[in-house]
Amino acid sequence: MADAPLFERLCLIGSGLIGGSIARAAREKGGIARRVVAQSRRPETLARVRELGFADEVEADPARAVEGADCVILCVPVGAYAGVMERIAPRLSPGCVLSDAGSTKGSVLRDLQPLLPEGVHLVPAHPMAGTEHSGPDAGFATLFEGRYCILTPPEGTDPAAVERIAELWRRCGSSVEFMDAATHDKVVAIVSHLPHLIAFTICGTADDLAEETREAVLKFAASGFRDFTRIAASDVDMWRDIFLNNREALLEMLARFTEDAQALARAVRWGEAGFIEDRIRRGRRIRRGLIERKQA
Amino acid sequence: MADAPLFERLCLIGSGLIGGSIARAAREKGGIARRVVAQSRRPETLARVRELGFADEVEADPARAVEGADCVILCVPVGAYAGVMERIAPRLSPGCVLSDAGSTKGSVLRDLQPLLPEGVHLVPAHPMAGTEHSGPDAGFATLFEGRYCILTPPEGTDPAAVERIAELWRRCGSSVEFMDAATHDKVVAIVSHLPHLIAFTICGTADDLAEETREAVLKFAASGFRDFTRIAASDVDMWRDIFLNNREALLEMLARFTEDAQALARAVRWGEAGFIEDRIRRGRRIRRGLIERKQA
Ligand SMILES: NC(=O)c1ccc[n+]([C@@H]2O[C@H](COP(=O)([O-])OP(=O)(O)OC[C@H]3O[C@@H](n4cnc5c(N)ncnc54)[C@H](OP(=O)(O)O)[C@@H]3O)[C@@H](O)[C@H]2O)c1
Ligand SMILES: NC(=O)c1ccc[n+]([C@@H]2O[C@H](COP(=O)([O-])OP(=O)(O)OC[C@H]3O[C@@H](n4cnc5c(N)ncnc54)[C@H](OP(=O)(O)O)[C@@H]3O)[C@@H](O)[C@H]2O)c1
Repeated sequence: MADAPLFERLCLIGSGLIGGSIARAAREKGGIARRVVAQSRRPETLARVRELGFADEVEADPARAVEGADCVILCVPVGAYAGVMERIAPRLSPGCVLSDAGSTKGSVLRDLQPLLPEGVHLVPAHPMAGTEHSGPDAGFATLFEGRYCILTPPEGTDPAAVERIAELWRRCGSSVEFMDAATHDKVVAIVSHLPHLIAFTICGTADDLAEETREAVLKFAASGFRDFTRIAASDVDMWRDIFLNNREALLEMLARFTEDAQALARAVRWGEAGFIEDRIRRGRRIRRGLIERKQA
Repeated sequence: MADAPLFERLCLIGSGLIGGSIARAAREKGGIARRVVAQSRRPETLARVRELGFADEVEADPARAVEGADCVILCVPVGAYAGVMERIAPRLSPGCVLSDAGSTKGSVLRDLQPLLPEGVHLVPAHPMAGTEHSGPDAGFATLFEGRYCILTPPEGTDPAAVERIAELWRRCGSSVEFMDAATHDKVVAIVSHLPHLIAFTICGTADDLAEETREAVLKFAASGFRDFTRIAASDVDMWRDIFLNNREALLEMLARFTEDAQALARAVRWGEAGFIEDRIRRGRRIRRGLIERKQA
């Protein structure tokens, strides 16, 4: 592996779970970057990043943070990209690779491409790894090991820049896959964003029940509901931004899901056993598919 | 604990996950029953129950199985209750306690009470424990430990009979709670039945996607979708019967959930960040409630 590091100066805009994990991986695994600059917005987060010591430099101002960096990775909620880009675009060095870790990818092209300076290479990425925790304390060097990282470089992107970001993720322990942004957004809408929307919603539905039933719900939450709320325990800003920035794909998947749920409800109402059995069997089939792929 | 066993002859109608677990608990924990009769329908299951040896007697015919029993527990899918009751009712011994382990409780009263012989006590129960596996091999003696068991005896039931069933579950390691059947059915509709309906549905929705996206879905199934499919890997007959026998409460909860999901979808469509944040926060609040109750 890795003799010379891939980058001289890696700048992470945002130092939470994802930024903090990339910084730790760069430090512990080697071959990724000679120096790591970690940026964060709030003084509390900055102080904590300094204490944790996972970066060589800590910066509050994104424009100063990106100066001289040959790689910049945005690790902030996707709704903050446009504002951040306005501030950093004038300071990005020629030849720099601009990447990100955001959970939506169409919005990244929309928000970053118009301001992209000549000679800066845009290589959007989405590491399919995470936990329900957030902030700089939540990160760890092995977060990305054995997980996929999806790259969605726009057509015509410099292949050398793409390869360096791909190699960064491989050195973090991930398998790299390529996809266009639209396909990415559809896939994550169904595997991740819709399940989260459903989980947040069903918690609210339970919370609205009459006091007596609600108490019992909390008491008897069977495994079904527990798995749902596990999903629901995630960061508010991040999920608000994901929903708003993957709107089309998310609403499309929700519409399909709702039609399917209504069809099943109709079968329940009219006692159509065969239809219900068919739906249950399909669920089991997908589940088996996942197990065979060792993803379950 | 327990000097004399609670029952002389305990008959389990159905010897799958639940029946097989009660039988094993009775054998391993003591104080529950002097003899255990395990009934099952198919020759394969009967043969396997004999091999596993968790019962003193193994029977194919439910009418013969209940003869002389002072406790009978139905451990078959709830849709089979009416048919089973027709066969066993004439053979139930006077003073016998008839109970069950079904996941719906209104339907139990509907299907069993009309045929209940004089002097037989009906004490419906629902152990809030289970796995995604089924059949006699799936059972184990500790399945019910540390879990709730909900009893829904109809008004006027002999208190001594109720207490014996309560004590049976305590000796299996469960905490016993009382509820009326209608409340029970609402609670499980939201904590368990609706989550399962959603999980089965979303698997189908994913399965219907264009071939290319579907392959990617299986590949990139993030934790969100994985938790859903874990729920979806359950027995077909059991879930068909649960949906059909808790129809009113399930459709009511699905209707509420759908309204709430549509409200969230509308907020996503119109970019109402505050509304979205509020829904996410509520999800986190319920989650915290669960953790505080050590149910998560
Ligand atoms: N968590 C996951 O499971 C996961 C998985 C894959 C991808 N992602 C993506 O990775 C990105 C970061 O997520 P994360 O989990 O690392 O979040 P996080 O732990 O909450 O950290 C967020 C970071 O972004 C900064 N930030 C928040 N709002 C900002 C704003 N409006 N303007 C500028 N900076 C802001 C925070 O700074 P302060 O603390 O100083 O405010 C913090 O440094 C997101 O785009 C997310 O979609 C997350
Ligand atoms: N699994 C759970 O998580 C769980 C939790 C709480 C309560 N329950 C309830 O417990 C009951 C049993 O569930 P289980 O998980 O033990 O199921 P299981 O493992 O599939 O076993 C079902 C048993 O019922 C018999 N059976 C199936 N269909 C029948 C029919 N139409 N007529 C007569 N007998 C039939 C089977 O006999 P053969 O094998 O001989 O066909 C088998 O002995 C259900 O009412 C369920 O709602 C289940």
